[in-house]
Amino acid sequence: MGDSTTAAAGQNLGERDFVEEASRIVEQAKELQDAAASLISRTTREEDSLRQKAKSLDSFVQGLRSAARKSKLDPNQAERLEEELYKASYVLSEGDAAAFLPSKSHGGFLRMFLGPVNVRANRKDVQLKVKEEYNSFRDRTAYLFLLFPSVLLGLRSWMWDGCLPALPVQLYQAWLLYLYTGLALRENILRANGSDIRPWWIRHHYCAMAMALISLTWEIEREPNCSQKQRGVQLFLNWAIMQGVAMLLQNRYQRQRLYTRIALGKARRMDVVWGETAGVDGQLLLLFPVLFILQGFEAYVGVLLLKTAFLGVVSEWQVVTCGILLIIMAVGNFANTVQTLVTKSRVKAKMRRGKSRQDLKSETGAKSS
Amino acid sequence: MGDSTTAAAGQNLGERDFVEEASRIVEQAKELQDAAASLISRTTREEDSLRQKAKSLDSFVQGLRSAARKSKLDPNQAERLEEELYKASYVLSEGDAAAFLPSKSHGGFLRMFLGPVNVRANRKDVQLKVKEEYNSFRDRTAYLFLLFPSVLLGLRSWMWDGCLPALPVQLYQAWLLYLYTGLALRENILRANGSDIRPWWIRHHYCAMAMALISLTWEIEREPNCSQKQRGVQLFLNWAIMQGVAMLLQNRYQRQRLYTRIALGKARRMDVVWGETAGVDGQLLLLFPVLFILQGFEAYVGVLLLKTAFLGVVSEWQVVTCGILLIIMAVGNFANTVQTLVTKSRVKAKMRRGKSRQDLKSETGAKSS
Repeated sequence: MGDSTTAAAGQNLGERDFVEEASRIVEQAKELQDAAASLISRTTREEDSLRQKAKSLDSFVQGLRSAARKSKLDPNQAERLEEELYKASYVLSEGDAAAFLPSKSHGGFLRMFLGPVNVRANRKDVQLKVKEEYNSFRDRTAYLFLLFPSVLLGLRSWMWDGCLPALPVQLYQAWLLYLYTGLALRENILRANGSDIRPWWIRHHYCAMAMALISLTWEIEREPNCSQKQRGVQLFLNWAIMQGVAMLLQNRYQRQRLYTRIALGKARRMDVVWGETAGVDGQLLLLFPVLFILQGFEAYVGVLLLKTAFLGVVSEWQVVTCGILLIIMAVGNFANTVQTLVTKSRVKAKMRRGKSRQDLKSETGAKSS
Repeated sequence: MGDSTTAAAGQNLGERDFVEEASRIVEQAKELQDAAASLISRTTREEDSLRQKAKSLDSFVQGLRSAARKSKLDPNQAERLEEELYKASYVLSEGDAAAFLPSKSHGGFLRMFLGPVNVRANRKDVQLKVKEEYNSFRDRTAYLFLLFPSVLLGLRSWMWDGCLPALPVQLYQAWLLYLYTGLALRENILRANGSDIRPWWIRHHYCAMAMALISLTWEIEREPNCSQKQRGVQLFLNWAIMQGVAMLLQNRYQRQRLYTRIALGKARRMDVVWGETAGVDGQLLLLFPVLFILQGFEAYVGVLLLKTAFLGVVSEWQVVTCGILLIIMAVGNFANTVQTLVTKSRVKAKMRRGKSRQDLKSETGAKSS
């Protein structure tokens, strides 16, 4: 197009030339428009065809797996078949082809906040960048999650004579509302990009959003009797500190483990760690008890809130609702953690029978980044 | 690939055949992976080249315009030049080429909630779908915006003896928080997709978000003296009803007008209506006074809130902050509406001198949808 030469020449043009130059630009713009239109329609066509192929291969893998399950294969053959099918779905989901697999629906939550905009990245490296950022968001917020309630409880005993003032608590609650909204939005985006995140952990964040919103409307009682009336808030802050410690533990140990698993070809690169994914056995001995204690404490705080409401100390509806939400979250978390443990031990038993899949990655040639 | 025949055959396979079939699928998956990788790298290359061309044409249009402004052209020539440059930027921004123009930065707000995900649509028709949905979101919410405060004020006089209970008001405030967050997110997405929405209207929604959040923590006073203490809330509800009427007026009359302007080639298809865009003269006579009265009333409510705080009727910090926010929003809205009026009359004066651009669209051949 010679833009630089014409641009330089543009400085000393006469009146005529200005108009001529502009007409030339219009022509170039039209050419660009045609090129863009043809590129977009060509790409759309080719993408559609790849999408169709990916879809049929994907459903074929499913079909073969279920057909094999019906006919009785001898264990050796079944193992080899499983190996091949795993390879096929690994190639499909880990490389650039993943962009053309049928996408999960965006879900009502994203539509509610963003409208029908497409948040699915076309390229695997962009998808991975989204996941990386999600992890670093969780890292940053885990520290704050630990810091804020610690500071509040610390100041309460050192400066505030056992009585929390309203504003700092409300700022913290507003931050929680933002945090859970951000997490829920990001997790829905991750899901649309092919992550395996369990639906419960997203729903769990919807509950947490509701709780943060409700707690904002919760009157922070002042004297007299504030330490009795604020018992619910204090318990919640204690629980938040424990939760912060658990988040840091998970982020630090489990993610390290996830990278190892990805390198070994045992996990997908879009997988995330959320309470449910494996640590090595030594860490599991630490992590699962911590998780169960947390869940127990969460339910305990919920029950205590209900008790204060029914004993008439604080009679606001917010107390009852937050109590119920905490119990729901505790039960759901517990059920999902147990489910994960069961799946894990089943997978382990299978792995013991099978051979190592360590060489899968180099064999299938899926790109690593 | 013959997927359907192989799939049908898959039902009656022997053990050997299962494994062979699976290996064939692995091969096909690898082929698909290669095809996907090559399509993506090819497309990326071609898109980059188009992006470069679009960028240089865009900056060339700017350069020519400023060069022409410096040299003194006779009015006739200047008019023709302006015409050509308008055509060029119209072609660049209205067709498929628009996807390759340098994109506006996503901005901190989207990054804060969504992370670094790309929300820019690659195709013009998808961009337009995003805009359509934004408009229909505004339509739906305008009715609710009018309905909720009317119901609250109605029930207050008929059922609640002049005293608003806390829960319905807080539900309304939570809905406002969702509404403004949704609007701010969608407007940032629209901006990333090339809409001309004025930054002030997005900032205005940040202020409104802050106000909704703060009002949630605002204690809804009960007896005694509730009607005096709730004066701020009542005024706010009155203002919300007026705002709802104005939103309906805008959505209905102005958007109709925008479509006409788009058809005439005077507006871009990604443009939106937000208090600032033109109506026909008759409607302007109705709309601008309504807007100015609204802004005056908004500032009045803000001042009244500050007054109740300083007279000591209600001494919470929320009252002061909401008062200040309302005054900031009123002043900002007023300044932006006036700016729009000035721009509009300037454009009108220009148009009177120039010829009609009615034929632009067919001439430039930009696709319409």
